[in-house]
Amino acid sequence: MIRVTIWNEFYKPNDGKPAELSVYPNGIHGAIADFLTENDSEITVTTRTMHDKEFGFDNETLENTDVLLYWSHIVQDAIPDEIVERVQRYALSGMGLIVLHSGHASKLFRRLMGTNTNRLRWHEDALPCRIWKIDYAHPIAEGLDDYFELAHEETYGEHFDIPQPDDLVFVSWFPSGEVFRSGCTWHRGLGRVFYFQPGHETLESYYDKNVQKVICNAVRWAYRPNVGSYSYVTDETKAIVM
Amino acid sequence: MIRVTIWNEFYKPNDGKPAELSVYPNGIHGAIADFLTENDSEITVTTRTMHDKEFGFDNETLENTDVLLYWSHIVQDAIPDEIVERVQRYALSGMGLIVLHSGHASKLFRRLMGTNTNRLRWHEDALPCRIWKIDYAHPIAEGLDDYFELAHEETYGEHFDIPQPDDLVFVSWFPSGEVFRSGCTWHRGLGRVFYFQPGHETLESYYDKNVQKVICNAVRWAYRPNVGSYSYVTDETKAIVM
Amino acid sequence: MIRVTIWNEFYKPNDGKPAELSVYPNGIHGAIADFLTENDSEITVTTRTMHDKEFGFDNETLENTDVLLYWSHIVQDAIPDEIVERVQRYALSGMGLIVLHSGHASKLFRRLMGTNTNRLRWHEDALPCRIWKIDYAHPIAEGLDDYFELAHEETYGEHFDIPQPDDLVFVSWFPSGEVFRSGCTWHRGLGRVFYFQPGHETLESYYDKNVQKVICNAVRWAYRPNVGSYSYVTDETKAIVM
Amino acid sequence: MIRVTIWNEFYKPNDGKPAELSVYPNGIHGAIADFLTENDSEITVTTRTMHDKEFGFDNETLENTDVLLYWSHIVQDAIPDEIVERVQRYALSGMGLIVLHSGHASKLFRRLMGTNTNRLRWHEDALPCRIWKIDYAHPIAEGLDDYFELAHEETYGEHFDIPQPDDLVFVSWFPSGEVFRSGCTWHRGLGRVFYFQPGHETLESYYDKNVQKVICNAVRWAYRPNVGSYSYVTDETKAIVM
Repeated sequence: MIRVTIWNEFYKPNDGKPAELSVYPNGIHGAIADFLTENDSEITVTTRTMHDKEFGFDNETLENTDVLLYWSHIVQDAIPDEIVERVQRYALSGMGLIVLHSGHASKLFRRLMGTNTNRLRWHEDALPCRIWKIDYAHPIAEGLDDYFELAHEETYGEHFDIPQPDDLVFVSWFPSGEVFRSGCTWHRGLGRVFYFQPGHETLESYYDKNVQKVICNAVRWAYRPNVGSYSYVTDETKAIVM
Repeated sequence: MIRVTIWNEFYKPNDGKPAELSVYPNGIHGAIADFLTENDSEITVTTRTMHDKEFGFDNETLENTDVLLYWSHIVQDAIPDEIVERVQRYALSGMGLIVLHSGHASKLFRRLMGTNTNRLRWHEDALPCRIWKIDYAHPIAEGLDDYFELAHEETYGEHFDIPQPDDLVFVSWFPSGEVFRSGCTWHRGLGRVFYFQPGHETLESYYDKNVQKVICNAVRWAYRPNVGSYSYVTDETKAIVM
Repeated sequence: MIRVTIWNEFYKPNDGKPAELSVYPNGIHGAIADFLTENDSEITVTTRTMHDKEFGFDNETLENTDVLLYWSHIVQDAIPDEIVERVQRYALSGMGLIVLHSGHASKLFRRLMGTNTNRLRWHEDALPCRIWKIDYAHPIAEGLDDYFELAHEETYGEHFDIPQPDDLVFVSWFPSGEVFRSGCTWHRGLGRVFYFQPGHETLESYYDKNVQKVICNAVRWAYRPNVGSYSYVTDETKAIVM
Repeated sequence: MIRVTIWNEFYKPNDGKPAELSVYPNGIHGAIADFLTENDSEITVTTRTMHDKEFGFDNETLENTDVLLYWSHIVQDAIPDEIVERVQRYALSGMGLIVLHSGHASKLFRRLMGTNTNRLRWHEDALPCRIWKIDYAHPIAEGLDDYFELAHEETYGEHFDIPQPDDLVFVSWFPSGEVFRSGCTWHRGLGRVFYFQPGHETLESYYDKNVQKVICNAVRWAYRPNVGSYSYVTDETKAIVM
């Protein structure tokens, strides 16, 4: 079984009602959990939010995660550095990581990329979005047409301050004139990272069949059960690990 | 001095009048020659067309070329294989190569890339085109704003069947819904190759200041005067070179 | 099932005895077929040599191939261009391709890469070879230690005139002072290409468990059953396909 | 003029004598300063060490740096996070960065790469090192032979835990059986980063003509005077910049 953990900040404003509830009654994590288990019988799902122990990133959770899906928006900087570094350590040790939508601005993603990944153009007016397949030989693009469309998405545009992706899988087009590298992969340490753009909290993207297919493909791609470990790590180098 | 050769097929239909003459009275090669020499005092320009000796690719011309600009459209397949292979050999030996617009479909570019680079979406309706800078650290993008626009261009769209670029410098946006990897670089052998999308023959793109700046930057980037040679080439390996 | 075709030139000199027979009684193709079917129960194998119809690359064979393994040495240039182009067309259409050892100098590999891939340093003195894992997150490297050794291999050394690999999976070390990018991947069109260095015809590399594991991993990696096709191919672009 | 700042930790143990003094009487920074100014008349050099104000990374110094050379070994973790982040910010804003030898383990390099770049094999026995040119079209490799040798270097070996380089310029060979990606480039934000392996403090590598040529080439490559800035940075995105 592939043990997927879906982490969603699930931020509760003063009224205690996460903005996403009107669209996703069980939260974004609940919606993603539903389609993952429906589409791939070898996946088991755990969900975590910022309200769980250690912001949801306790060691036991991470130890039992093959692939982590990460959605965040508001609380990027609330998560303490030592917890961010812990998740980074797991990712570098072979846990797959899929960063969704506004998760691009998270400390975790910035740490793994080394750049100001929070930087990009954006405006929220629920315009359509057309997602083009760029890398036709990539497993994450499998089973998709040349492009697919979302009726409403937040607009994201270049320049997106990321390292050159190892593979550029998708590029998005927006009617207001933007383009965006919307599906990008990187190998980092023993692990694999995928960033995917759609998923604004008040829009219905996670109900879209193509978005679901991409995320299902990405889980399979990021899953590396036999990735092994660094056999050359001596005590000395261990001592100076981040 | 940087010795630039601009090759333009300059195809003459039955009436003997290349389609580009209404926009470029001295041909596309003439227009490019003008802005290159105006903008970079270390550049000297030679122009060649399909009407010259050996389709313009005689050995003497290539021997005296540091950077070749290549524009073609109609006559892709008229150039004999042995001449295409000769140009390829010079490119692999360190001659810079800048492939412009419909040159993507040339035998030369297909040979250097190994894929069906002729494959892309296109329609000719002179819509606007917005060219986004993607790689902010790339010398070819130097001095440009986040994006620039052309009032009228032929629409090119993905999927563009190219190998993953070494550097993706630009991505274009078109109002009809396409995106396109419009500025791409590759190292091949000792040489450097840049592909740049704008430049339909009946539109004014080569008069645009930003297009001109990109091409000027690209000439500098592709120019490798001290690139040396392969010291390890033995007689035997020489014998089986393409 | 994954339909693998193993193509080995199986060149017969004047005495009718391929050099490899002393080490591989059923030919290199026979040895590879044995370990593939032993190690992966979902693989079915067909073998072809230059002595088969159309050099072993008839349309029916290719039509029924998911992944092609390609070993050649002597007859690189004997295969007619139109047959090479046919195999290239299948590779670009999604058939996986694994190029082995001296297959680097084949017309097919040169065509797909666009460079003089025949160029590299080499000497035949059956020295040891140590193959280092470089990309720890790559599926082709799965299950291997930090490095493995072959007691005897032909020495291959840089400069190897290939395009920058999409992923650099292995680098080899040789006691005589050479290094070599020995495991490289590229996406080309809809297909995936892997080059792997070991496999001199008079040495026992294909009996090595690690070499076998790499090739088994590579078959899985190159296999893309749902890769689809180019939906945008119009008659016109079809007409100018290579 | 290209304003180069050479930063060398210049760590002073209890006896107050940096280990490097026996080989480099003016420190590693002094030796590098000498050959840079000798070889490139457009370079002006400033040197800084950990003993200078704010560990040598005060704002004024960075503000006046086009390209930073960074050598460190012992004090990696002594530099406070906020200073490391400041240097990172300058690098991402277009200051060229050349990381030398044991600087691979610095917090700065780890931050910019996102991985445990301190991880690699190493042993100090002053064996020879042979550095192979891999990317023949790269400006940093210009003017070099196929390989060059250093009589004595510290041995570095894979696995080196770095993101896949944008360009792999050199790979080193060591007689004890290691290979190492010894010259690597990355674009990060507006800036360019180069890592180069030679330079153990008690060995003479910085006197080697080829090492000097590589570093001179790298300064030119990393220098981006017209790199501009991010015009899209709004107050909001500024607020969440690292």
